[in-house]
Amino acid sequence: MSRAFNFCAGPAALPTEVLEQAREEMLDWRGTGMSVMEMSHRSDEFVAIAEQAERDFRELAGVSDDYAVLFMQGGASSQFAAIPLNLLGDKTSADYVDTGIWSKKAIAEAKRFGQVNVVSSSAASGYTTIAPESEWQCDPQAAYLHYTPNETIGGLEFDFIPESRVPLVADLSSTILSRPLDVSRFGLIYAGAQKNIGPSGLVVVMVRKDLLGKASPHTPTMLDYKVAADNGSMYNTPSTYSWYLAGLVFQWLKRQGGVAAIGEVNARKAKKLYGFIDDSDFYANPIEPRFRSWMNVPFTLADDALNKVFLQGAEARGLLNLAGHRSVGGMRASIYNAMPEAGVDALIAYMTEFEKEHA
Amino acid sequence: MSRAFNFCAGPAALPTEVLEQAREEMLDWRGTGMSVMEMSHRSDEFVAIAEQAERDFRELAGVSDDYAVLFMQGGASSQFAAIPLNLLGDKTSADYVDTGIWSKKAIAEAKRFGQVNVVSSSAASGYTTIAPESEWQCDPQAAYLHYTPNETIGGLEFDFIPESRVPLVADLSSTILSRPLDVSRFGLIYAGAQKNIGPSGLVVVMVRKDLLGKASPHTPTMLDYKVAADNGSMYNTPSTYSWYLAGLVFQWLKRQGGVAAIGEVNARKAKKLYGFIDDSDFYANPIEPRFRSWMNVPFTLADDALNKVFLQGAEARGLLNLAGHRSVGGMRASIYNAMPEAGVDALIAYMTEFEKEHA
Repeated sequence: MSRAFNFCAGPAALPTEVLEQAREEMLDWRGTGMSVMEMSHRSDEFVAIAEQAERDFRELAGVSDDYAVLFMQGGASSQFAAIPLNLLGDKTSADYVDTGIWSKKAIAEAKRFGQVNVVSSSAASGYTTIAPESEWQCDPQAAYLHYTPNETIGGLEFDFIPESRVPLVADLSSTILSRPLDVSRFGLIYAGAQKNIGPSGLVVVMVRKDLLGKASPHTPTMLDYKVAADNGSMYNTPSTYSWYLAGLVFQWLKRQGGVAAIGEVNARKAKKLYGFIDDSDFYANPIEPRFRSWMNVPFTLADDALNKVFLQGAEARGLLNLAGHRSVGGMRASIYNAMPEAGVDALIAYMTEFEKEHA
Repeated sequence: MSRAFNFCAGPAALPTEVLEQAREEMLDWRGTGMSVMEMSHRSDEFVAIAEQAERDFRELAGVSDDYAVLFMQGGASSQFAAIPLNLLGDKTSADYVDTGIWSKKAIAEAKRFGQVNVVSSSAASGYTTIAPESEWQCDPQAAYLHYTPNETIGGLEFDFIPESRVPLVADLSSTILSRPLDVSRFGLIYAGAQKNIGPSGLVVVMVRKDLLGKASPHTPTMLDYKVAADNGSMYNTPSTYSWYLAGLVFQWLKRQGGVAAIGEVNARKAKKLYGFIDDSDFYANPIEPRFRSWMNVPFTLADDALNKVFLQGAEARGLLNLAGHRSVGGMRASIYNAMPEAGVDALIAYMTEFEKEHA
């Protein structure tokens, strides 16, 4: 098969240009006689690759020198522990917002290391809406306020950044670099790489430098942000090849015009797909329109019994990985940066045809 | 440059055949229209890749079903914390052997989570020999006994497996799969991938199943061996592309005849290089011969002032990364599985010529 349109929620599609460059450089990176994955992480060559990636990321995401940018291992799930371990400091509790499965995972892990106040939950709505901040029960003594700007599984996304008196912490795994963001509003942002950054096995953390140095004595050294920051994310051998690939993705994104330009494309892709779903009586998405995810579009068919046929037909056309998460069922189209608008058009064309045949 | 001989200690050289296969499959893995790094870790395709890798690893390393094999993130350095967190259980202390820099790192991290007894140290010898086990001050109440079979930086390697009344724990990062090993002697073995397994960002852990389930409540979930074992190392998104590459390395190793065959090649490579060093008055290695590392051969030149010239000449011939670790200086040739015997021959030829010119 030639390259398919891959709607996987993560690990997700990467830009074809990036994979082509990685293929080209696989056995011999720029005349060094080595693959990037064979280089010492302390070599001049790899340090240059790593520093360029950080510079490009800072430029793209608009991250000032007030923040450390860390390239860590263990995915966002490791951050669920690292955050309370590093940020509770002399406080005893933290505030969390529950908007879905990933919020819940963050909450469950944080409870193992301190007290958690759930200041708002979307549970009563079936996770289809988000309560206004005026209704949240925030604690001014909390160490931080954690939320999940986009729920990858439920497709529920904030259309605002919370006003917070305490440092704001966000799991931006599925929306990082998808549109402009005011990073200065946050104390800490973390993002697993496998959606908009690169392959899995890498998590990027931006942390305001004044928050460093408060880690609990129970913190494994490898999860201590200050250790990572003081060592340029090379306290031990980092995931070098993933870091390199992330750098290629950043350069690709710059060639697309950066996050402002890709943000316009992403807005158009989401608007088209939700518009089509809303105009149809056959497909449905349950989320309150203003809180619909730009990146992950869950939808159901009029009859669940058709799911399998829908997926088979999609696959036959090279439209891959449209099954919803195993915990919720239905369908889900993840349309991250690397999904071209043509992929969304092809999906809509197929959905149109399928509806005609089966409605 | 064509492919060089890369003597890097890690991330280290990979077999050229493996890189060629990865290049071939980069944009479209076996007609799926996707790169392996774009696949859901829960897809049939990736699960098959992951399971095949585990099967091949078990076969190569001789790991029975009494052990869980885990493909984790965070490198061996994360294991320095995970081991006491998971294995101390209701015990208060663990025994550690100090044979060099990596032992010391493991000891320092373990001290943060429990009491550490250093039962033997090679410090007095300048880390050139290992005391016989009869002299070790072991504690029969220790939760486990930890040692570092091969010190990658110092080039000091055990030529015996300790007899231990408590579970034996070993950092096998630099010698895993380099020759046959009786895994049944161990409670837990861990190995960072970036020497004999694959790219960095992956650590393989073999743990006897009866040792699972004793994790301290302070253990981050992502470091809990039982959680990893119960979820087939997919509690969260694993480092999928590294896992795939590890699988390609395992298949390559099987084509070489497995660990018995590669062990013979490795023995020959080490014998040649140490033999040459010992026969020379210009080069020297300080380690007691029986404890010399098969994998990492540190050596000095008669005059340190020649180091730079030596390295430049080596590089000009495509003999890369021969500088010793920044903490010890001198030279170091790491000759893992992927270093062909021809690479050692080329190094010896260069060393011979350099000695003639500069002695």
